[in-house]
Amino acid sequence: MNGMKTIFSADHLLHQSPGELIFGEFLPAFEKPERAELVLGRVKEVGLGEIRPPESFPVSAITRVHAPGLVALLQSAQAEWEGLGRTGAAYPYTWMSRGMREDRVPAGLDGRLAYYSFDCGTPITKTSWQAIKSSVDVALSGVALLNSGERGAFSLCRPPGHHAGADHYGGYCFLNNAAIAAQKLLDDGAKRVAILDVDYHHGNGTQQIFYRRDDVLLVSLHGHPDQEYPYLLGWEDEIGAGAGEGFNLNFPLRWGTAWPEWSAALEAGLKRITAYGADAVVVSLGVDTYKDDPISHFLLEHEHFTQMGARIASLRKPVLFVMEGGYAVAEIGINAVNVLTGFEGA
Amino acid sequence: MNGMKTIFSADHLLHQSPGELIFGEFLPAFEKPERAELVLGRVKEVGLGEIRPPESFPVSAITRVHAPGLVALLQSAQAEWEGLGRTGAAYPYTWMSRGMREDRVPAGLDGRLAYYSFDCGTPITKTSWQAIKSSVDVALSGVALLNSGERGAFSLCRPPGHHAGADHYGGYCFLNNAAIAAQKLLDDGAKRVAILDVDYHHGNGTQQIFYRRDDVLLVSLHGHPDQEYPYLLGWEDEIGAGAGEGFNLNFPLRWGTAWPEWSAALEAGLKRITAYGADAVVVSLGVDTYKDDPISHFLLEHEHFTQMGARIASLRKPVLFVMEGGYAVAEIGINAVNVLTGFEGA
Ligand SMILES: [Zn+2]
Ligand SMILES: [Zn+2]
Repeated sequence: MNGMKTIFSADHLLHQSPGELIFGEFLPAFEKPERAELVLGRVKEVGLGEIRPPESFPVSAITRVHAPGLVALLQSAQAEWEGLGRTGAAYPYTWMSRGMREDRVPAGLDGRLAYYSFDCGTPITKTSWQAIKSSVDVALSGVALLNSGERGAFSLCRPPGHHAGADHYGGYCFLNNAAIAAQKLLDDGAKRVAILDVDYHHGNGTQQIFYRRDDVLLVSLHGHPDQEYPYLLGWEDEIGAGAGEGFNLNFPLRWGTAWPEWSAALEAGLKRITAYGADAVVVSLGVDTYKDDPISHFLLEHEHFTQMGARIASLRKPVLFVMEGGYAVAEIGINAVNVLTGFEGA
Repeated sequence: MNGMKTIFSADHLLHQSPGELIFGEFLPAFEKPERAELVLGRVKEVGLGEIRPPESFPVSAITRVHAPGLVALLQSAQAEWEGLGRTGAAYPYTWMSRGMREDRVPAGLDGRLAYYSFDCGTPITKTSWQAIKSSVDVALSGVALLNSGERGAFSLCRPPGHHAGADHYGGYCFLNNAAIAAQKLLDDGAKRVAILDVDYHHGNGTQQIFYRRDDVLLVSLHGHPDQEYPYLLGWEDEIGAGAGEGFNLNFPLRWGTAWPEWSAALEAGLKRITAYGADAVVVSLGVDTYKDDPISHFLLEHEHFTQMGARIASLRKPVLFVMEGGYAVAEIGINAVNVLTGFEGA
């Protein structure tokens, strides 16, 4: 097969959330293993290209963008949790706010869960770490494909990553696969990398990681913070700071946004990426922009995902697609793979 | 009766939490109406003194220390929640963390819940606002008693308040009754007010409100942030800032702290209050330092609460006792009232 290669690890099955507190109810998790399996099934169904397992990369590739204390917590939390006589997955129950200490990490488990997280929908189970680490490896193995000369590659990551910042996790995301991949591209020789985040939700973690840097440009199209998770980041006036000023571009869009408005924002984003002169592009590929997604409010249809892929191909850059969100489970495979075939066919 | 007067409102019954996510489980709330009823029963049993309903004070007394946006949210959240087609109490599901916007409040309900809160154990029910407002009135009516010349008064507040900051709620607390009372004392003519927080948990909200001010001294004895909620504030190196430098005194104490160590910290705190020359003292009276409290780890016994009251009396200042935490429900009345009779008998 000569098509786009997909990197996939069955280790993702090792992370399964017992549930989340959302809208006042403790509900079954929206972010579930079937998601990745359905995308994989569709990759096979359309014969996209070879499917490969990831190589294993050292944790040092992770700590290039994440705080060591966060990485350590993800590895030890569940054992510490059991050590306190508790059962089930490790959940935080309190969080940071204005006036609290950012400069001092409490020693205890509940304190570190509070310090390093920002929501109660991202529990750490006994086997989550292996899934989280393999998801990073899936992203990094995609980088290796680009380095070997591939025009495009698909890192079928799960758990997703774009909500995870340098020193906090949440929004179903523990480590920021796309950000780790972008950093690896730089460390392997790229001078400038663009991240295009097309997930329905703002890539708050990616923004936080690169906000003061000019070697990574973030372009994010997403539900407006006045209406949509994560609410506390993603406005258009967040343009980067310090050396990073001008290298963060947010397109907050209102509920009900359909393809004409969405694709106009995409064109503006692509134009910015072209002007930036990126050596490579990482796409945070969420397909929760789909009209029937259960937790989202945009109106994209199947064919728009194909067009999205074609437009991304027009950049004429090496592109790594990193799987993020998308919760209309039955349709997630079709929409994600439509982006890839649209890219390949352009 | 000539003893200490108690201010109490049955409106507290209008706030009843449907439950909280804590230690990974959605559990019945620890902060429940029986708490106040048991304290009231004990006040009657020992014949402490007259029991009075509160007067009603204008909301402007609240916005002297709290953000208007927070106060508005507490009033409207449940109606907005129902307007979104949801049932039950209003819970946030995501929160602030490093790198998120502190300068911009999102317009939507979930965004404002995220912005203005820091935990998932403090739901807003349909009738919570009346309980919250009456709890503030109970505190302010206690201030009126001190202004009229009483040596001491007991504001039997519920819900409690000391975890609520200027612009956030959490920890079973919505508005900071003790802080609002301290501000009222200043507005009514006091030059300096000391707040002595003897609750098991750090008075993070009170600290945040007055951290940059020298007209309110906070002395807090509490579980160490390395071990105890709220984890992200309460270290000994938090001494105040700007004009407030030197006017915040934390005594973080380890699990297992018993009376000898606890009372030594109290003596140091009382010495500081005396040196400060406060015109009046507000005591954030939590009795979760009791040895059998279900969520705490100090070892105080019944008679230590009596001694605590006597030591507070040694300040020879007007003292307003404001009820905060304490969850060993059967014992909470005995311990709270022991502090008051200890004060009266000294
Ligand atoms: Zn998403
Ligand atoms: Zn307490």
